[in-house]
Amino acid sequence: MARHGPWVYLKCMSNAKAFAASSPTSPLASTSIPRREPKERDVQIEILFCGVCHSDLHTVRDEWNAVMPTVYPCVPGHEIVGRVTAVGSSVSKFKVGDLAAVGCLVGSDGTCPECQAGFEQFCNGMTLTYNSPDVHSGGVTYGGYSDSIVVDEHFVLRVPSNLDLAGTAPLLCAGITTWSPLRHWGVTKGQKVGIVGLGGLGHMGVKFAHALGAHTVVFTTSESKVEDAKRLGADEVVISKNADEMAKHALSFDFILDCVSADHDINAYIHLLKRDGNMTLVGAPEKPLPLFSMGLLFKRRSVSGSLIGGIAETQEMLDFCGEHNITADVEVIAIQEINEAYERLLKSDVKYRFSIDMASLKG
Amino acid sequence: MARHGPWVYLKCMSNAKAFAASSPTSPLASTSIPRREPKERDVQIEILFCGVCHSDLHTVRDEWNAVMPTVYPCVPGHEIVGRVTAVGSSVSKFKVGDLAAVGCLVGSDGTCPECQAGFEQFCNGMTLTYNSPDVHSGGVTYGGYSDSIVVDEHFVLRVPSNLDLAGTAPLLCAGITTWSPLRHWGVTKGQKVGIVGLGGLGHMGVKFAHALGAHTVVFTTSESKVEDAKRLGADEVVISKNADEMAKHALSFDFILDCVSADHDINAYIHLLKRDGNMTLVGAPEKPLPLFSMGLLFKRRSVSGSLIGGIAETQEMLDFCGEHNITADVEVIAIQEINEAYERLLKSDVKYRFSIDMASLKG
Repeated sequence: MARHGPWVYLKCMSNAKAFAASSPTSPLASTSIPRREPKERDVQIEILFCGVCHSDLHTVRDEWNAVMPTVYPCVPGHEIVGRVTAVGSSVSKFKVGDLAAVGCLVGSDGTCPECQAGFEQFCNGMTLTYNSPDVHSGGVTYGGYSDSIVVDEHFVLRVPSNLDLAGTAPLLCAGITTWSPLRHWGVTKGQKVGIVGLGGLGHMGVKFAHALGAHTVVFTTSESKVEDAKRLGADEVVISKNADEMAKHALSFDFILDCVSADHDINAYIHLLKRDGNMTLVGAPEKPLPLFSMGLLFKRRSVSGSLIGGIAETQEMLDFCGEHNITADVEVIAIQEINEAYERLLKSDVKYRFSIDMASLKG
Repeated sequence: MARHGPWVYLKCMSNAKAFAASSPTSPLASTSIPRREPKERDVQIEILFCGVCHSDLHTVRDEWNAVMPTVYPCVPGHEIVGRVTAVGSSVSKFKVGDLAAVGCLVGSDGTCPECQAGFEQFCNGMTLTYNSPDVHSGGVTYGGYSDSIVVDEHFVLRVPSNLDLAGTAPLLCAGITTWSPLRHWGVTKGQKVGIVGLGGLGHMGVKFAHALGAHTVVFTTSESKVEDAKRLGADEVVISKNADEMAKHALSFDFILDCVSADHDINAYIHLLKRDGNMTLVGAPEKPLPLFSMGLLFKRRSVSGSLIGGIAETQEMLDFCGEHNITADVEVIAIQEINEAYERLLKSDVKYRFSIDMASLKG
């Protein structure tokens, strides 16, 4: 791009409305950002809804500075659903007017073994939807708190037409993050599966485990969440602070999905696994978790991690949601309410995900 | 047995020479213990060599009191090799004069799903070779620091005739403990496998990984172990304190076997695993190990545990050792040297396992 000089560069860009933070301590506020004109392989999307992920807040406040410093202005948002408004000349998957979605990734090298195997999320050259070096603009990527986005079609997902769009947006991060490990570890009918923590991720885990036919047990610290967990699909709910209740489930789980990002005792859950049972962590607590190896030695158990999912797997998840009519439980907000929503997020005061109605950005 | 009264009970027992501890602070000393006459399914073995495992020392000193209090007198030893001196009427696997071995287990319920699947080590009703309730005598089991033992034939292993017997004894615990995870996680030719810690367990891990055809890398804190690691079969040796050396191996391992029982940083090794790589712990440090979930999330890695192995798997390991002429590197001692050997064990001053020549017990 630089070879053509600034005039050509500007000609290839259009402006988009967005909400951005200008520093770690600034509230998000209305602004304008450049979006490239669709290139050959690009899909231009009018964003209809964008889910609010805790990662948005971490990035906006530069809380991951040590590994991924935030570049300002920062436009977060990686749970994007919208409608196609333009396509590049070689785009075959989408046409103008189609529903479309974008998740945490907008690029990868496409050639490494990870990409070839469908694990774009593990590609060393992957581009995150926001706060990542943008190979097209030379700047930084801007996320979904915006009225439009332009993305390589490989990273654009098809959205089943029967799904509620506000509730579909969170599938792109909370959904795939929980779907991927459930599928990878072969969760199926007849198995006993635990979901630890009933927040944005956990509530999707419950829906998926239930829809996959597993006997689904929710672990929560709050008595107040019992009824809701059952409504979401839990067959049983265990109050994890109650040692007697926990002991009743010893050695009985095929798989446990741990969705907790705060400090907690993973050993208590490891003891609930059968032989060769696995517990997968999808949260990333700041401090290390104390792990007693003895719990793993007995019964040859394992603890693993999982990070979002690849593009093909994300499409599989969306198709499954279409078939089973699964969406996230959302509280729809206007973009002008985002700063208040962040404060509520910090208190886990949301059932179970905020979804921003981007029509509010037009106002 | 009680139904027949004490006379019949005594008639069914014979005395064996042994070395036992009479309290947590007593040195091991010569004594006499009862051994049952072989029943229908029993094999009576004259013990020729018994390996010295750190578990022996923990049990003798009652250091596992919280989970498994020691009953005194305590006769440890679960790395037993000897010759069959009598067999019960229904024994089919052995005849008098055969070589035979016994490991950590001498009984299990035989009917539970774990037993049926060949995981006797995970049977809730399993009987350890020492310090376990003895269903036959009503007392406690006595281990291999003795001139004989009587064991149900299911728990007696065949010993390939070409193997050095002193070096074969440690295969029954150190051998199977490292063999089982290498096999379970499918270590094979062309893979890159790490062995952390070069002690009794680790040195067997190196031999097995090398014999299975893997590119074998030993991690050690001691420069002094480099040459020996190579002699044992390591293709590379990494000094784990050297961060630059460690970094060179990032993302490159299919499997890592962690044989360390002391506190150490498992996160440093987790980062060396490829996507879907596994690190299996076979040591049980007293304090919990700090685990950063982020290292697992990226590349979907897992950490698991493994505990000795089942009987069929132990036989498989011994047969493999016969084919590849693999035994442990041992320092042969007389039973009278056992207390001094324990002190050296505490300083890791042994290459790589003590093996007691039981002929010394006859003197």
